[in-house]
Amino acid sequence: MISTVTLYVDPGHHTNRLQLALLMKFCCQCGSEVELTIPSGDNRPRFVCRQCDFIHYQNPKIVAGCLVTQDDKVLLCKRGIEPRHGFWTLPAGFMENGESTRQAAQRETLEEACAEVSIDGLYTLTSITPIDQIQMIYRATLTKPYYAAGDETLQCGFFSEAEIPWQQLAFETIHNALNFYFEDRKTGDFPLRHIDLHHKKPVR
Amino acid sequence: MISTVTLYVDPGHHTNRLQLALLMKFCCQCGSEVELTIPSGDNRPRFVCRQCDFIHYQNPKIVAGCLVTQDDKVLLCKRGIEPRHGFWTLPAGFMENGESTRQAAQRETLEEACAEVSIDGLYTLTSITPIDQIQMIYRATLTKPYYAAGDETLQCGFFSEAEIPWQQLAFETIHNALNFYFEDRKTGDFPLRHIDLHHKKPVR
Repeated sequence: MISTVTLYVDPGHHTNRLQLALLMKFCCQCGSEVELTIPSGDNRPRFVCRQCDFIHYQNPKIVAGCLVTQDDKVLLCKRGIEPRHGFWTLPAGFMENGESTRQAAQRETLEEACAEVSIDGLYTLTSITPIDQIQMIYRATLTKPYYAAGDETLQCGFFSEAEIPWQQLAFETIHNALNFYFEDRKTGDFPLRHIDLHHKKPVR
Repeated sequence: MISTVTLYVDPGHHTNRLQLALLMKFCCQCGSEVELTIPSGDNRPRFVCRQCDFIHYQNPKIVAGCLVTQDDKVLLCKRGIEPRHGFWTLPAGFMENGESTRQAAQRETLEEACAEVSIDGLYTLTSITPIDQIQMIYRATLTKPYYAAGDETLQCGFFSEAEIPWQQLAFETIHNALNFYFEDRKTGDFPLRHIDLHHKKPVR
């Protein structure tokens, strides 16, 4: 241990890292108190146990989902949970251990829209640095002609470009994915859209 | 809490999840003991605090790196740390909070090969489900004509296809990326190579 850092409170919209910091008080290995310090040989502050020296690394999380299309329409879900309850999104959620990114996207689509899909390809890859999150949206199509609102969804359905509730979208990443899709559909070419979001403005 | 599950020991090569499970004994929020149980409304076992009910989610980690090319050669690093000490790899490592995937790939290349690079595009995306890891390798080129072994690297240099120590590569994902690269170079087209590895054979 070569130095101890002070944690500054960020009053902005994205407080995940702060929240994590406030939550990480005890060592998951021995139960003793941790401190935020730069371990020997490292160059970043980590939560380190004062008792057993265990280093608690924290890493970005992956959100995976699908942009499911049918004819000229896209499948949207109205969120039944926070954040952004009541706003519209693509079916997507946190990737779990033990699955691939494609499996995560398919699982989330099944959970949120009760829809079984086949994956066409990775379409958007967004790093959202203020909240330590990577979002991956895959283009996909239904393998069965069925969809319905899942447990965390109020309502779902297919929307044409004109029908999309553009002012009621839950997240900037969803807005981006839909914009790219309707733009790229004109040419039929869907290159990977690779975006880095570093700003701290509200999610929408 | 609706059920408690038994944790089975996997004697295979990939024990990360087991190791994590063994390490997660205490709550990071209140320091009490945790138990592996399926929280109400969930469908997967999580480490949950018996005292404060805090749920400790565990998610896949991202490894990002670069396939740096110069003329017909690729930059390789000989690993100076475990795992696979002494074997050859592309510069890559765990993505940190607060950076994008591209920034992570550039940082790792700077740390391991002292090389400043510009990113051309995402080239391989591999989910390695047995170890809960996502690997992203970007094609890149040097922005300054300099490279050298970093702190965790024994030696580094540019290798042509014939010069690559194919039998001394550290990981299967590195082998795949190099194979794809020399194959795709014939056409000059480098599509995203999207791979899911579900097997538990040794990493090489």
